[in-house]
Amino acid sequence: MTSTSFTPPKYFQISREIIERIQRGELSIGAPVPSETEIIERYRVSNTTARKVLHELEKAGWVTRIKGRGTFVRQYAVERAITRIFGFTRNMIEVGRKPSTRLIGLRVRDEPHSQIVNGREFTMAGPVCEIERLRLADGIPMMKETRTISLQLCPDIQQRNLEQSLYSLFETEYRIHLTEIDQMLSAIMLEGPWLDIFKTPRPIPAFRVEGVSFAGKGLIVEMEDSVYRGDMYQFAAKASRHDHG
Amino acid sequence: MTSTSFTPPKYFQISREIIERIQRGELSIGAPVPSETEIIERYRVSNTTARKVLHELEKAGWVTRIKGRGTFVRQYAVERAITRIFGFTRNMIEVGRKPSTRLIGLRVRDEPHSQIVNGREFTMAGPVCEIERLRLADGIPMMKETRTISLQLCPDIQQRNLEQSLYSLFETEYRIHLTEIDQMLSAIMLEGPWLDIFKTPRPIPAFRVEGVSFAGKGLIVEMEDSVYRGDMYQFAAKASRHDHG
Repeated sequence: MTSTSFTPPKYFQISREIIERIQRGELSIGAPVPSETEIIERYRVSNTTARKVLHELEKAGWVTRIKGRGTFVRQYAVERAITRIFGFTRNMIEVGRKPSTRLIGLRVRDEPHSQIVNGREFTMAGPVCEIERLRLADGIPMMKETRTISLQLCPDIQQRNLEQSLYSLFETEYRIHLTEIDQMLSAIMLEGPWLDIFKTPRPIPAFRVEGVSFAGKGLIVEMEDSVYRGDMYQFAAKASRHDHG
Repeated sequence: MTSTSFTPPKYFQISREIIERIQRGELSIGAPVPSETEIIERYRVSNTTARKVLHELEKAGWVTRIKGRGTFVRQYAVERAITRIFGFTRNMIEVGRKPSTRLIGLRVRDEPHSQIVNGREFTMAGPVCEIERLRLADGIPMMKETRTISLQLCPDIQQRNLEQSLYSLFETEYRIHLTEIDQMLSAIMLEGPWLDIFKTPRPIPAFRVEGVSFAGKGLIVEMEDSVYRGDMYQFAAKASRHDHG
């Protein structure tokens, strides 16, 4: 393939320029972005192009339009559905970001592993494999997880490539399909060594997610203790009548 | 009724003493509480009584026992199920605390009200009634909510007693039963004026919950924008296969 000289369309150039201003923090979360009229005047473009710019920004999740009020910079956060079983990898692909994983710790222990989730203590028989991983999107550290996996159910998992999706590994290598995950969310503050891990200069609010994953009734596959950056994540949930009781 | 002189049982006195030490912060979250052997020695009681003390503390949610490791002070936080439709009042009664509500703002507006929840913009036709309330448990401010209610569906709600459960009011006065609530959780930091509202000296992490409540398909009853103290709340969720997709 030969590279062709190519001038991106005007609407694309303008939307890139606005995105860069958001990324540099010149336009902060909640701030208004230029209106259709302002774009027409500033860049000398048609109203079709101006409209396309705003549509482009909205589609990519950078801004939000509020009827009768204008267009505002949206929180640059990934939405995560708390009631769906799906992993980081798939979550990131869905929102159009490139996921990667860095293994930062690995330990095999013979003792059983216990964790409290939603006021109940869950215990998984040993031996277990404890993995610590940093998960990134487009190279930005998004969350850090500690996952303790049953070696009875997943023998020799410590010898696998652990920088891939564990859910895929469970399914393809061990034929284990998770049926339920019980999770507990806490709001915490990241300080001290956490700031190095997430490469952020100031303390940031975060979610701590503790969970226990089952394959069938009562069969625990793994337990999780993860930290999701609050400036990068929002959790989505639905409450409904039939969950009552 | 005449009051009878009554000496509380020994196990009760000891557990009260330990609870007071937790409340005063002498025993902090995660710290070990006296073991069965230590209770027997310190208070000169039987092992039955000592066991009863620990059981009592655990039942009331003050401590958690980890097999082979001991008994530790638990986070003094209320658990809230994110996938159940139930209000603050019921949540507090379930965990044995006394709920109360303080109305701190009330406004009727003619314009429609819009909010973004989980990337979607929801709009409710006007007029609407906007209520700001502080919710307390045993006199401690736990969360602050702004609820914007449809006056088309709940006419004259501004003239009702708004220091009671709104869910009860919807059901008894307007025969409205919520069928679904879409919610979005963010992790934020409470600073500045928030510290006065929650009477806390230092910044604390918190959950922001934005929600939209439906009675039947697409019929919006109210929208919510609330702040739950992170040191007082944990959210519980279950993910399962059938929510997939």
